[in-house]
Amino acid sequence: MRTIHVKTESADYPVYVGSDFLPQLSRHLRKLSGDALPRLFILTSPEIWALWGEALLSGLPKEQHPSILFLPPGERYKRLAEVERLAGELAAAGADRSSVLIAFGGGIIGDVGGFLSAIYMRGIDYIQMPTTLLAQVDSSVGGKTGTNLSAGKNLIGSFHHPRAVFADVATLQTLPARELRAGLFESIKAGIIRDAKLFRFLERNAEAVLQRDMDALKYVIGASVRMKAEVVGIDERESGLRMILNFGHTIGHAIEAATGYRRLLHGEAIAWGMLAALQIALGRGTVTAQEADRITQTIHAYGPLRPFRSSAGLLLGAAGRDKKNRAGKRRFVLPQGIGDAVVVENVTDAEMRDAVEWTLAAARQSEQKTEARGR
Amino acid sequence: MRTIHVKTESADYPVYVGSDFLPQLSRHLRKLSGDALPRLFILTSPEIWALWGEALLSGLPKEQHPSILFLPPGERYKRLAEVERLAGELAAAGADRSSVLIAFGGGIIGDVGGFLSAIYMRGIDYIQMPTTLLAQVDSSVGGKTGTNLSAGKNLIGSFHHPRAVFADVATLQTLPARELRAGLFESIKAGIIRDAKLFRFLERNAEAVLQRDMDALKYVIGASVRMKAEVVGIDERESGLRMILNFGHTIGHAIEAATGYRRLLHGEAIAWGMLAALQIALGRGTVTAQEADRITQTIHAYGPLRPFRSSAGLLLGAAGRDKKNRAGKRRFVLPQGIGDAVVVENVTDAEMRDAVEWTLAAARQSEQKTEARGR
Repeated sequence: MRTIHVKTESADYPVYVGSDFLPQLSRHLRKLSGDALPRLFILTSPEIWALWGEALLSGLPKEQHPSILFLPPGERYKRLAEVERLAGELAAAGADRSSVLIAFGGGIIGDVGGFLSAIYMRGIDYIQMPTTLLAQVDSSVGGKTGTNLSAGKNLIGSFHHPRAVFADVATLQTLPARELRAGLFESIKAGIIRDAKLFRFLERNAEAVLQRDMDALKYVIGASVRMKAEVVGIDERESGLRMILNFGHTIGHAIEAATGYRRLLHGEAIAWGMLAALQIALGRGTVTAQEADRITQTIHAYGPLRPFRSSAGLLLGAAGRDKKNRAGKRRFVLPQGIGDAVVVENVTDAEMRDAVEWTLAAARQSEQKTEARGR
Repeated sequence: MRTIHVKTESADYPVYVGSDFLPQLSRHLRKLSGDALPRLFILTSPEIWALWGEALLSGLPKEQHPSILFLPPGERYKRLAEVERLAGELAAAGADRSSVLIAFGGGIIGDVGGFLSAIYMRGIDYIQMPTTLLAQVDSSVGGKTGTNLSAGKNLIGSFHHPRAVFADVATLQTLPARELRAGLFESIKAGIIRDAKLFRFLERNAEAVLQRDMDALKYVIGASVRMKAEVVGIDERESGLRMILNFGHTIGHAIEAATGYRRLLHGEAIAWGMLAALQIALGRGTVTAQEADRITQTIHAYGPLRPFRSSAGLLLGAAGRDKKNRAGKRRFVLPQGIGDAVVVENVTDAEMRDAVEWTLAAARQSEQKTEARGR
């Protein structure tokens, strides 16, 4: 088991990375809350519960009868109307301020569960038990919770840190391969922006990682979480350093928005966004051609990158509406070599257009390759 | 102008009590944000805007075109669906993380505006400009924001402090008399639990206060806010001292719930709740008969108390579901003389029943008096 401590201005909690949390859940929970377990409420998805619900219940004492709340899968349920329904179910089941919610599932379960905990009775404790790689390395750490609006993703939310995160790599064994790869792009991001050693590990061990070797996964997840914990510890509210976590996100988000959030998984869009940002970095010389090459090859090693179609106009428009823009300024994260990154505000319209057009061409090329393979 | 500083673990902001904030709003806002005014969004009710909107706009420079968002009056609009609609309007109007929302209206506007600010883009700055006495002395201070669920009031919410509160007594001149009196019950509460001098002022100056003498109102509001600021400064999250602010609220909330939140204004229900709690205090000897008499007479001086009908069963049931209960314990606030209060956890079922029955009898008596006057 690896333990990473997240320490921010407003919170201090452990992230545990291991492979046996479910069957021993009550033992682990007692480490947090002492002998008397609180009343537990579990928010999960029907799929995850069907696969892992029994294992989780086996780890709780018989007298604990946690209430199970379900959220259907998909971004379209990441909405306030669902939060209201779930809050009503909590109230009906008698949840009070001392109750604890366990968010057991992927990123949407974590985001909605965290937000529900943030606003139910003005805040109750919650625990993250992420079951996707993306949630384990990224969304379960850092305290960002929330829902979408029609006008955009994650426009509603709170900073609300969990009491603890249990990242159980055993649950990754049932994760679809495409989702595993999409999550690994966030780990590659972690390596590029702040952890050259993690990047090298991912570069050299793609096969073991993709075959879900438990030790390889524990290392990758632990290192990714440690990177994020350090950054969030220094800059919880994203006034400075935390911005670097958005490497690949400006154009990645634009691609997600322009393709209606249906075509690509988040991590896949971020992979495209990182390649796009890399073009700008290469043009400015903040990475060498050799570094750019290593990054590109490593991203592709965890591919194939799913192609998409869009237009430069659509992507540039969507990037302009990105909520990371502050008072009209466009912030952009560029890698500086491998293992470091900077936030700049002077990316020009021409650089943006070139990067977007390069990405559209790369996506077209990838589509042709896919078709050629299909013949 | 009186200035009270609210200092808590998570916030530090001024509450200004005065009578000329509207026509000089931009000058006051510049004190907070420096020379460049942020983009302003105003959440208000149609009534308040009709009465005071022009005065507020006159205080802003011509080039400021604040977007005005409206929330219809009434508890039934204090819901997540309205928050979602308003968030969509903010997004459509281009509000970003540097925008500032002004909550201009009564308690519901403040609660919803504060919550909207708490969760829009995970939190933007907001300013309270309360226009009812209740909002000025109570709900605009302390950072509690939120909405109702079908299952109960204020079950959804956040702690999110404003950047500043401007309590303008000029706006109280258009407040309906019944609402003025209902708000004053919270000031009487402030006096009873922590400020004997404020209590004496209210006891002796009922006429001036009820005739809306500006100086008398400024004193009462300033002292009430100071009391609350002290308490919240010591115990922001209501783990201890802040509980005393709930004097009158256990049975007061039960009366509101049992009468469907329609019959009584919040302050009126709290007045009944204070009289009920006083019976328990008198039975235990934490107040003398003479003190109980002064409290009772002062509450009635700001009456008449609107009668209501209910049953002991309904009220006791509603009190049992009060969200201030923690892990099954019933907490109850009792005055200790005048100007002090304690939180106890050992109020018996019999004491509760007696207090509730006394209150129902007093309400019946008050109804008969009202009828007799009506003949």
